[in-house]
Amino acid sequence: MTFTVTVRDHIMIAHSFTGEMFGPAQRLHGATFVVDASFRASELDSDGVVVDIGLASEVLAEITGALTYRNLDDEPEFAGVNTTTERLCQVIADRLAERVADGRLGASAARLSSIEVTLHESHIAWASYEREV
Amino acid sequence: MTFTVTVRDHIMIAHSFTGEMFGPAQRLHGATFVVDASFRASELDSDGVVVDIGLASEVLAEITGALTYRNLDDEPEFAGVNTTTERLCQVIADRLAERVADGRLGASAARLSSIEVTLHESHIAWASYEREV
Amino acid sequence: MTFTVTVRDHIMIAHSFTGEMFGPAQRLHGATFVVDASFRASELDSDGVVVDIGLASEVLAEITGALTYRNLDDEPEFAGVNTTTERLCQVIADRLAERVADGRLGASAARLSSIEVTLHESHIAWASYEREV
Amino acid sequence: MTFTVTVRDHIMIAHSFTGEMFGPAQRLHGATFVVDASFRASELDSDGVVVDIGLASEVLAEITGALTYRNLDDEPEFAGVNTTTERLCQVIADRLAERVADGRLGASAARLSSIEVTLHESHIAWASYEREV
Amino acid sequence: MTFTVTVRDHIMIAHSFTGEMFGPAQRLHGATFVVDASFRASELDSDGVVVDIGLASEVLAEITGALTYRNLDDEPEFAGVNTTTERLCQVIADRLAERVADGRLGASAARLSSIEVTLHESHIAWASYEREV
Amino acid sequence: MTFTVTVRDHIMIAHSFTGEMFGPAQRLHGATFVVDASFRASELDSDGVVVDIGLASEVLAEITGALTYRNLDDEPEFAGVNTTTERLCQVIADRLAERVADGRLGASAARLSSIEVTLHESHIAWASYEREV
Repeated sequence: MTFTVTVRDHIMIAHSFTGEMFGPAQRLHGATFVVDASFRASELDSDGVVVDIGLASEVLAEITGALTYRNLDDEPEFAGVNTTTERLCQVIADRLAERVADGRLGASAARLSSIEVTLHESHIAWASYEREV
Repeated sequence: MTFTVTVRDHIMIAHSFTGEMFGPAQRLHGATFVVDASFRASELDSDGVVVDIGLASEVLAEITGALTYRNLDDEPEFAGVNTTTERLCQVIADRLAERVADGRLGASAARLSSIEVTLHESHIAWASYEREV
Repeated sequence: MTFTVTVRDHIMIAHSFTGEMFGPAQRLHGATFVVDASFRASELDSDGVVVDIGLASEVLAEITGALTYRNLDDEPEFAGVNTTTERLCQVIADRLAERVADGRLGASAARLSSIEVTLHESHIAWASYEREV
Repeated sequence: MTFTVTVRDHIMIAHSFTGEMFGPAQRLHGATFVVDASFRASELDSDGVVVDIGLASEVLAEITGALTYRNLDDEPEFAGVNTTTERLCQVIADRLAERVADGRLGASAARLSSIEVTLHESHIAWASYEREV
Repeated sequence: MTFTVTVRDHIMIAHSFTGEMFGPAQRLHGATFVVDASFRASELDSDGVVVDIGLASEVLAEITGALTYRNLDDEPEFAGVNTTTERLCQVIADRLAERVADGRLGASAARLSSIEVTLHESHIAWASYEREV
Repeated sequence: MTFTVTVRDHIMIAHSFTGEMFGPAQRLHGATFVVDASFRASELDSDGVVVDIGLASEVLAEITGALTYRNLDDEPEFAGVNTTTERLCQVIADRLAERVADGRLGASAARLSSIEVTLHESHIAWASYEREV
């Protein structure tokens, strides 16, 4: 038995990729990533929720706020890394997991079993990353 | 190997929540929930289906029909319960599982391994519940 | 030649309808309305925009904020009125037009020719209202 | 009486805006624009179509192909211009209209009355531009 | 000032096209058409609606019910006609207009100014037809 | 920890079903299937991707190209088989798995753990099939 709650946000970033397989995407270009953050637990808390959806939205907005309207090629944290859609899913999921660990999503969030982040890069392509918390 | 078939319906309900964390949602308000019911099995039956999709749609419509156009705060079955999105996923999934158990979805449905119900409450938030059958 | 810019928000309200034609919707129920507000002009301003999209989003959020998480049957402004989807489109469009008139959307907004508001009540039904400004 | 046919494609670009009203979007960032190109006519041709949809898709792909995977700040054609969503709608619509004029969309396209281009920049914002041909 | 109400349904048909421009679509193939029927009026009736949405859905279902699960190449009414997406929009819109004319959509429908029908044939292509009533 | 990348395409086919439970779908009809192909791996390769998304799209297009614009009732490979939505998911997933096995998706694809294919047959029904690779 698994309950999941998902909230959506988005980021608009510039970046480029290193590696022949990326073809024209080796040039500086950009993307809107519609970001879906899912929180999973096997039981609901006493309020009947997986996680405080208000807090979840706030925390997701903090994380997307630190990424959006930037050229990721210039961000020191991504030096030498291809910021592919799947990699950015992991980055956001890991940051959400840190917030769970430090109590930022409330006490109920301690019961969470996993987090999944999906980034939609267009109407024909998207990626996701799921990890335990 | 897992096959899944999903059908979509919706409900339009009023309700309110108890608990400070719900903020303005403690007031009587409402929601359209777009309801996705997924049926899973590891093999197809001799007709090549997971479940009779016509029956599945009918049964889902019976269940949503008993919830829609109501104020859930006035329904005895939800007395003392916060009818959160995730809770309503569970309610609908459990009712579908009962119909599977009593043969209402046809003999093939006995092969189903699990049911998942997702309720979309807006373009930026949704929840789901998955259980075995 | 017409340029249009649209921003999306949502409200979650309870209400009921008066009139036999509404059938079960005469009972207190609710809806999520995904709200699309469109602004039209025949030319762009010197910044290359129809309207300041940041201001447009803020103003739309003020208007939806005054409607959401409420039982519209209890709001004096809707006394004796069926708050149908099409009527609520008009209410929101008229409030947007007032904000344009009082300068709240910036000086460029004076060039706007019309406003259209669409409310999606489910995956199978929506309504809209277009008016001049 | 108006017939419309629409085809969808997308571009992924980097750019920045000039002007205080753009706030953080003054920084180099990027966007996926999902591009909808609509062709309108008051009558169908003898084949029963508004325009050869195969040709329309090809021509749209040529136009998006010349824009995608680029930093628009570096393209001479956009020097000194804010490449806002609404402006890019106009650029693409004008290029489509040129192709209609030079016969690239086939003889039937001479009957087209107007073209509309919509660019979706996220799940909560989009813009469009309609012009005669 | 224009109010619009839209309801959605769908049909699943087989057909083929005559004419070289259709390429592989000259072969017998098929399509799901998601059908959006829009009703427009400049004023709401005394109940606050454009049209009785229950009746509109029923009438649309009657019309789609007479088309769906058929090979349109075998239907006498389409003999010698390419049943393109845009043509089928017109067929459905004309049938809706007939129902308005014969009172099937209720007395209020006499105030309708126009009907628009959109058929989505895939996630990247759709067509529509608008006519007066 | 699971990474997933998904690409979308579509097919437009005619077919009919054998078996009373299919009701009117026993008649020759058709469908647009919007096809989502998902590739899963527990780790990214040295380029930071699950699979070369360009290759994945190409291979999916080859597979859909061999199915689209056809009457599946006439295809020898489907003789005696109901080409239900769930069955077609399996057909496409198995063909993708073959391409992975024969190296067509690149060396990195050897790390893939599973493939899932989802076919959307309308706005209210879809199916999927997941298998190991």
